[in-house]
Amino acid sequence: MAKPLNIGLVGYGFMGRTHSNAYNRVTNFFDTEYKPVLKAVCARDAEKVKGFADTWGYQSIETDWRKLVERKDIDAIDICTPNNLHHDIAIAAAANGKMILCEKPLSMNTAEGEAMCQAVESAKVLNTVWYNYRRAPAVTFAKQLVDSGRLGRIFHYRANFLQDWTISADLPQGGTALWRLDAAAAGSGVTGDLLAHCIDTAIWLNGSMQNVTAMTETFIKERQHTLTGKVEKVEIDDACAFLCRFDNGSLGLFESTRYARGHKALYTFEINGEHASIKWDLHDLHRLQWFDHKDESNLRGWRSIHVTDGDHPYMNKWWVPGLQIGYEHTFVHHVADFLEGVAKGESVSPTFRQALETQKICDAVLSSAKTGSWTNVG
Amino acid sequence: MAKPLNIGLVGYGFMGRTHSNAYNRVTNFFDTEYKPVLKAVCARDAEKVKGFADTWGYQSIETDWRKLVERKDIDAIDICTPNNLHHDIAIAAAANGKMILCEKPLSMNTAEGEAMCQAVESAKVLNTVWYNYRRAPAVTFAKQLVDSGRLGRIFHYRANFLQDWTISADLPQGGTALWRLDAAAAGSGVTGDLLAHCIDTAIWLNGSMQNVTAMTETFIKERQHTLTGKVEKVEIDDACAFLCRFDNGSLGLFESTRYARGHKALYTFEINGEHASIKWDLHDLHRLQWFDHKDESNLRGWRSIHVTDGDHPYMNKWWVPGLQIGYEHTFVHHVADFLEGVAKGESVSPTFRQALETQKICDAVLSSAKTGSWTNVG
Amino acid sequence: MAKPLNIGLVGYGFMGRTHSNAYNRVTNFFDTEYKPVLKAVCARDAEKVKGFADTWGYQSIETDWRKLVERKDIDAIDICTPNNLHHDIAIAAAANGKMILCEKPLSMNTAEGEAMCQAVESAKVLNTVWYNYRRAPAVTFAKQLVDSGRLGRIFHYRANFLQDWTISADLPQGGTALWRLDAAAAGSGVTGDLLAHCIDTAIWLNGSMQNVTAMTETFIKERQHTLTGKVEKVEIDDACAFLCRFDNGSLGLFESTRYARGHKALYTFEINGEHASIKWDLHDLHRLQWFDHKDESNLRGWRSIHVTDGDHPYMNKWWVPGLQIGYEHTFVHHVADFLEGVAKGESVSPTFRQALETQKICDAVLSSAKTGSWTNVG
Amino acid sequence: MAKPLNIGLVGYGFMGRTHSNAYNRVTNFFDTEYKPVLKAVCARDAEKVKGFADTWGYQSIETDWRKLVERKDIDAIDICTPNNLHHDIAIAAAANGKMILCEKPLSMNTAEGEAMCQAVESAKVLNTVWYNYRRAPAVTFAKQLVDSGRLGRIFHYRANFLQDWTISADLPQGGTALWRLDAAAAGSGVTGDLLAHCIDTAIWLNGSMQNVTAMTETFIKERQHTLTGKVEKVEIDDACAFLCRFDNGSLGLFESTRYARGHKALYTFEINGEHASIKWDLHDLHRLQWFDHKDESNLRGWRSIHVTDGDHPYMNKWWVPGLQIGYEHTFVHHVADFLEGVAKGESVSPTFRQALETQKICDAVLSSAKTGSWTNVG
Repeated sequence: MAKPLNIGLVGYGFMGRTHSNAYNRVTNFFDTEYKPVLKAVCARDAEKVKGFADTWGYQSIETDWRKLVERKDIDAIDICTPNNLHHDIAIAAAANGKMILCEKPLSMNTAEGEAMCQAVESAKVLNTVWYNYRRAPAVTFAKQLVDSGRLGRIFHYRANFLQDWTISADLPQGGTALWRLDAAAAGSGVTGDLLAHCIDTAIWLNGSMQNVTAMTETFIKERQHTLTGKVEKVEIDDACAFLCRFDNGSLGLFESTRYARGHKALYTFEINGEHASIKWDLHDLHRLQWFDHKDESNLRGWRSIHVTDGDHPYMNKWWVPGLQIGYEHTFVHHVADFLEGVAKGESVSPTFRQALETQKICDAVLSSAKTGSWTNVG
Repeated sequence: MAKPLNIGLVGYGFMGRTHSNAYNRVTNFFDTEYKPVLKAVCARDAEKVKGFADTWGYQSIETDWRKLVERKDIDAIDICTPNNLHHDIAIAAAANGKMILCEKPLSMNTAEGEAMCQAVESAKVLNTVWYNYRRAPAVTFAKQLVDSGRLGRIFHYRANFLQDWTISADLPQGGTALWRLDAAAAGSGVTGDLLAHCIDTAIWLNGSMQNVTAMTETFIKERQHTLTGKVEKVEIDDACAFLCRFDNGSLGLFESTRYARGHKALYTFEINGEHASIKWDLHDLHRLQWFDHKDESNLRGWRSIHVTDGDHPYMNKWWVPGLQIGYEHTFVHHVADFLEGVAKGESVSPTFRQALETQKICDAVLSSAKTGSWTNVG
Repeated sequence: MAKPLNIGLVGYGFMGRTHSNAYNRVTNFFDTEYKPVLKAVCARDAEKVKGFADTWGYQSIETDWRKLVERKDIDAIDICTPNNLHHDIAIAAAANGKMILCEKPLSMNTAEGEAMCQAVESAKVLNTVWYNYRRAPAVTFAKQLVDSGRLGRIFHYRANFLQDWTISADLPQGGTALWRLDAAAAGSGVTGDLLAHCIDTAIWLNGSMQNVTAMTETFIKERQHTLTGKVEKVEIDDACAFLCRFDNGSLGLFESTRYARGHKALYTFEINGEHASIKWDLHDLHRLQWFDHKDESNLRGWRSIHVTDGDHPYMNKWWVPGLQIGYEHTFVHHVADFLEGVAKGESVSPTFRQALETQKICDAVLSSAKTGSWTNVG
Repeated sequence: MAKPLNIGLVGYGFMGRTHSNAYNRVTNFFDTEYKPVLKAVCARDAEKVKGFADTWGYQSIETDWRKLVERKDIDAIDICTPNNLHHDIAIAAAANGKMILCEKPLSMNTAEGEAMCQAVESAKVLNTVWYNYRRAPAVTFAKQLVDSGRLGRIFHYRANFLQDWTISADLPQGGTALWRLDAAAAGSGVTGDLLAHCIDTAIWLNGSMQNVTAMTETFIKERQHTLTGKVEKVEIDDACAFLCRFDNGSLGLFESTRYARGHKALYTFEINGEHASIKWDLHDLHRLQWFDHKDESNLRGWRSIHVTDGDHPYMNKWWVPGLQIGYEHTFVHHVADFLEGVAKGESVSPTFRQALETQKICDAVLSSAKTGSWTNVG
């Protein structure tokens, strides 16, 4: 019989749904020692949060996260709020000895993130940040391939995350739905929202970065603010690109925007090694492109690997070869790994401390974009 | 508060998992009047079925399907057994006034299928067959496009379902895992297992077929039988291809095999109309290829539509544009539609009667393969 | 210093251009013992043929092919006329001891083709038929791979040639431009025009066929005839599909049409073997898709080989890796091989006799489409 | 009767072949007032240049370019030498009143290029630089689409040119074959060789650049030098990436390398506008990817346009829809346009002056890579 792990969720937006789904499904597919129990969900609007609790099966609701983090019947706090609340909730949760699963990016900036790291480390609570794409099977498989050393010396890493949903000047900023356009709630624009994903994967696959030079742009300078009703200056970055050097001597190129017409969520990365190269694209997330220079010379070509076989990461838990899973499964995998970590008493990757490195790079990127100079990370 | 719909599941193999998952998830994403309750699961091996019930949350187990179909606390019987049991269970379930959700193909042959249709029709019980691919969003969207008339006169329909998992002569036939290779349990090989899917989609999109000429082959003539331990003749078709004429005057080409090296589950179809054409491929199931001759002449090209937007079928229930769902969601959609049908008192497509047409075509195909003649459907 | 090989070309349409281009270019890229000299071009319209001769550098013109084939200063006759003239010209050219390069299909039917074969064989003149796609580098490479045996036992071969240029009912039939729609000039429709290509490649790669069952259709029943000005019955096949069995036990599927909206010249083939599979598509003719089951299991995938390296067939004659050649180069390669054959005194593939096999299959296909029966080849 | 235009070619390497082929073929396909006559080819090695002249049909040879540019029977000098000779030959050719077709990049640096511009402008001789990719039909078509304004405001431009042929440390530098690795002959590495192509296309499609920030790397620090036989420091850039801002407010990302395992000549660009986006890839050069936001919302998708129709640029001169041309045709098109310019007395794009802008950007890029600062162009 699985042991219960009582979850208290803060926030019920898009991420609240992906996490709740993951908690509900994980034990149908993974044989874990612990089983998540949806103990409570918390948000300010009592009526709405009640509806969410009914849909997903939460046993109770709270409207003040400070009460939630103090509840004795909660083992783990899951933070799905806008970024500007991550710090306070995490500090309080740690103080109450709760495990913490925090949405990405870790924090509004490095200073906040450092404080959060110290809090969980001194409280000795298990912690993790929801950089979910690490656990897309094809991405996890890429990690295995890189770690095997078969790519040889790495020369290049490039990634981008392209969207097109904010091109219309009529789109307002701020409020529940559009807090991602509001610097006060989000901290930054595409840098924290999208590039943070690219960076997290990059440092996982290719190691630390030394320094960056960056460029940001805000194409639509003013938008109506949902909360004030007034036309206000847009403070976030609509687009951000940067060059970097990794510790291993390879060169990096990163770009993100919400103004790339034709791309909904085109997160791609490519890594070029001496012996082999890898490419991935979120739009077709179960495919990994692999080029191996050790193949016979006239038969070399990029292989399109449909990462759905039983010997691919996580896939023996699902269906049969050829049948794909989707976006939401990355969260199920994260929960499965987290539960395994709970059984072992270990935090799973990326921990707060590991996610802080992404925060430092984001800060260096935003700083470089302002100063126009190459900027060291950290 | 949703009304309960008590489910009794027979069989706990691959399809038992996909259906159970669908029942468990549907109300998290769809706002339905009825909510499935996992009342009982039935299979011969008490210990194994108990384990399955625990994993998926079934409240009770049975080891004799005859008892299950008589239980008063069951509203709907879901048949996930090998094909040779569909007929008896369905007849009994209908006699007990149960709604029936039956795995495909409907039956071992047309005669059985006709009896099953008459049973559910005279018992006036809701019924449906799990041809799940109709409810892949891209396939449902294809149906909308065809029904809109914008393709104009249809000239061609072609489909195939290619796999490669039985090429090894060492693979045995029969038993729990490999009943699909055993004619006694499966009725036929790729015709009922794979081509039936292609045919179901085809007649849904392109209407009825008049006649067919077919060819089958069994490449590995003998395999060890799991149940007897002896090397026995393989009676199923390893591969099947046929040409046909549709009622609307278009020509059809269909092929299926388990000997197409490199293809795990390559189910594709293409329909060519006077004004536009459509292509789909299960390996990238969220993409629909669309060619529209009405585009400006120098800008004509196949469009790769990532069917993940809110205005695509079912997709407003899931995540955000660009984020894909997977194979299992086709079953969730089927359950959602079935529940809506329950609320209305109507069977949802494909009903037993509609699925019988696929059975008739399969029979005509297998008959033509034996006689070498063009054979009329049904 | 290369020896001259004097060419006499009959016909100056589309194929007249591709061949003339090939003769003009071959010695720039291939080091051959013989060099084609454009001695004469022949067609009925003196003014037009003069213009063609000027453009391409032919030294003289003729308006009667009977005079051309008798000219002493001509070594080789190249037949680029509509199909209904192949037989007479070839017989006469052979009688005059000329080498012959004949456009495909060889003839209007098997009987004509047999006579042509006997004529060249008894006259002992070098002969070849312009099935040009054999010499697309990727196709030649496919042949090398098949011949190496690394695919193992072959299970399946499928090919199609899909176009969409005759869908409009306003398109007339017959005359210089549209003789391909006129049965009197073309013999058949897509069968001889397009399927003949698919069949030639298939028997080259996969060996002879035993028998076929076929279906043809003429979607637009009547069209204005360019020569008579009257609306006349269309006698050609607009579409043709057939199933077949090869001598090696593999199954074949072939389809061709001019009514597949969205496809300009989609000639594709795929061959599935026990150990490996190959796919090709004329629309991207320098790419070969290769799947090798002997790759490590979790790294298996279709490789997209950009067949532009120096160790790929013919490619060391052209540019550098990654830079593609086009459709016309298949003819240059054919000429290069033909010239090598001239030096050795050997006909190059496909000879008239080899091309006759394609003719026999076409005849069996058209016959089966009429009778509705499986029909033996030959 | 076409008027002769007497060509004197300097250099007979890879580019000498592409140009000679273009001169030989152009009048077979284009109806031009002038016809190129291969008057003379010049290189230091008399024997080798004689062989080249024989292969391609040059009427005479020279071994000193200074004599060639003074010959009265030459109308146009075509410069195909390594970059370090462009300046001197062009200045001398202009002084002798010759038209000039110069290989790219224009010069070793901006100063040389400025001198060359002044020379041709004061001599009033027609001039052009062989940035051949402008005349790939799909790229020319992209230009038409951009100029039509239908993309709306441009937000992003990104391009790369990725190769993998210098990864081996055993590859020497310098000499006839490998002068591209020798800074003394080439001026720079990938910046002048590859990025120059990307930049030329970019400023043609998207206008001028304001400033850049760049990064270069030389992965293999020392290589044996072919001419000296000694291991010497490698002075060229193996890889170069830069960010930029265009005058129109859009952001640019450029990258080039010869260390991207798996890419032979992957030149791609993408341009994202408010209403539409375009992508292209040299590996499949006849395809243009087009996304149009004005399509119906649920039918939006990237269109893969096979740019082979008669209403696509240059394609009415070649074969029929669906049949592709190749890399070498870009040079034929350039010659065709140049001959049309000769008839009109106008230089065709890109002129020396236009190509100088690319040179300035390359210089700014290389400078920024050294200083680590954003650098203004020009």
